[in-house]
Amino acid sequence: MGICGKDLIKDGWFSERGALWPGQAMSLEVTEVLYSGRSDFQDLLVFTNPTYGTVLVLDGVIQVTTRDEFAYQEMIAHLPLYAHPNPVDVLVIGGGDGGVLREVLKHPSVRRAVLVEIDAAVVEVSKRFLPALAAGYDDPRVEVIIADGAAYMEDHANAYDVIITDSSDPIGPAEVLFQPPFYAAMARCLRAGGLACCQGECMWLHLGLIRPLLTACRRVFPTVGYAYTAVPTYPSGQIGFVVCAKAAGATPAVSARSPPPDVQARLQYYSPAVHRAAFVLPEFARRAVEGEGEETPAAGGDKKEDP
Amino acid sequence: MGICGKDLIKDGWFSERGALWPGQAMSLEVTEVLYSGRSDFQDLLVFTNPTYGTVLVLDGVIQVTTRDEFAYQEMIAHLPLYAHPNPVDVLVIGGGDGGVLREVLKHPSVRRAVLVEIDAAVVEVSKRFLPALAAGYDDPRVEVIIADGAAYMEDHANAYDVIITDSSDPIGPAEVLFQPPFYAAMARCLRAGGLACCQGECMWLHLGLIRPLLTACRRVFPTVGYAYTAVPTYPSGQIGFVVCAKAAGATPAVSARSPPPDVQARLQYYSPAVHRAAFVLPEFARRAVEGEGEETPAAGGDKKEDP
Repeated sequence: MGICGKDLIKDGWFSERGALWPGQAMSLEVTEVLYSGRSDFQDLLVFTNPTYGTVLVLDGVIQVTTRDEFAYQEMIAHLPLYAHPNPVDVLVIGGGDGGVLREVLKHPSVRRAVLVEIDAAVVEVSKRFLPALAAGYDDPRVEVIIADGAAYMEDHANAYDVIITDSSDPIGPAEVLFQPPFYAAMARCLRAGGLACCQGECMWLHLGLIRPLLTACRRVFPTVGYAYTAVPTYPSGQIGFVVCAKAAGATPAVSARSPPPDVQARLQYYSPAVHRAAFVLPEFARRAVEGEGEETPAAGGDKKEDP
Repeated sequence: MGICGKDLIKDGWFSERGALWPGQAMSLEVTEVLYSGRSDFQDLLVFTNPTYGTVLVLDGVIQVTTRDEFAYQEMIAHLPLYAHPNPVDVLVIGGGDGGVLREVLKHPSVRRAVLVEIDAAVVEVSKRFLPALAAGYDDPRVEVIIADGAAYMEDHANAYDVIITDSSDPIGPAEVLFQPPFYAAMARCLRAGGLACCQGECMWLHLGLIRPLLTACRRVFPTVGYAYTAVPTYPSGQIGFVVCAKAAGATPAVSARSPPPDVQARLQYYSPAVHRAAFVLPEFARRAVEGEGEETPAAGGDKKEDP
């Protein structure tokens, strides 16, 4: 790749320029560089900023800041976990910083949380510099596997109630996580009635990428929805989620659009009202992402061909 | 002031740094500078960007881009206009670019749309370089007054059904638009049952400014709500609205949280579902902005003291 995050710091400011958001860049003032290094997979940079706290950057792209990370971690985790009636076994693909894992562990029904991260360096750096995110690694329910998530899923059919794919962008090590075979593997790895939630890029920037991704998901899941959350330090300030449900035998798949009425959770970002509102897209995005199969459960099977 | 927008362009990129968002900056690549000048009130800059089209900058702060402006204009205009049962006379304070006016004129019930802008240069520059925003200036229902909006309202009691304050930030010429006397003047200028909607800054950056602003509004309006929209080129990607309703005699004030069921509008950003979702705040923001008087109409009067 050749990107060095530290080289993107000029005159005390880090600037995030990327091919996925041409013509725009988020810049953050750098108080102190805490870490800069390269793993087998990517470049890692950790610095502090006066407003956003500690910032983790992979291959030049901001992944988390300690000030606004909850808006992402809570939503990608709790949308499927509160929508699922009884999540026991949960798989996190990617998410080496530990933030999603921390949220997963807040659900008392969860007995096992497996994190499959390809890059051990992300886990190590997070434990060292982002302890508020890495908070769950010592929990006895957690198992960390350093491996390729797609390959792991192939070996674990019908094993999980919820799968969360917390990936970086589809350039670099996460590219495979945005391809149709990955979604098919996810469907096989889920138990009947299971839910998957995947990082789904930004509706302001990537509708051209989001549409085929949803089409691929609709080929293997009976219901597919698109939700979003607002994260100031992500490009254009928002990031979306592809939420897929697998049918439970003759029962229609769960709709993840709304948690059951008994859910009362009020976290830092998430609430049941925020859950429902996250699926309400601005019209330009709703028109672009809605298609055949959108929230029209095909009872009795977990496969539905697009026409 | 001394800010010169053109000086903020370095190596072909414009960077927006400001005291209201320390430690962060949105940068936009500059394809061409179309205009740079100074009026009696502020510095004006217009340039083009490959992703966001034409960009208007006042005193170094991005005001609109032709790609994402609809997310702001539609929401600040249609939240009060669709919530009001019959808006006939509408006042826009600020909004010299014409974008809000364009949206106001989409409502067939509107017979008169008065725009009071302090800086004639903004209107002129918009007519010349932002024709898609300035589209409404030739409409026979429109009257443009170059004057101070607060002073104008003092001379026009009980004259308007809807008032929209489309201001820049509370540093510079718009400072007065964020002070308690302005909200009291707005309440007097509205007819019974009228609605006001004001630019309300960003919940990620300005809760310390938003809370006293809401307290001031609750002193003069029986119902006050806070909504938000997502605009990629605004600091932290979001901007809020303070929506205030004046009581109609013995009838409780209108709640602007939801349009009447007969509203079917589906614009580029706005829909009735988006309208309702805009008032659903992330928990950290909901807790901060909710207080006494929030959506608890005090029937029969348009004044309610905070405890």
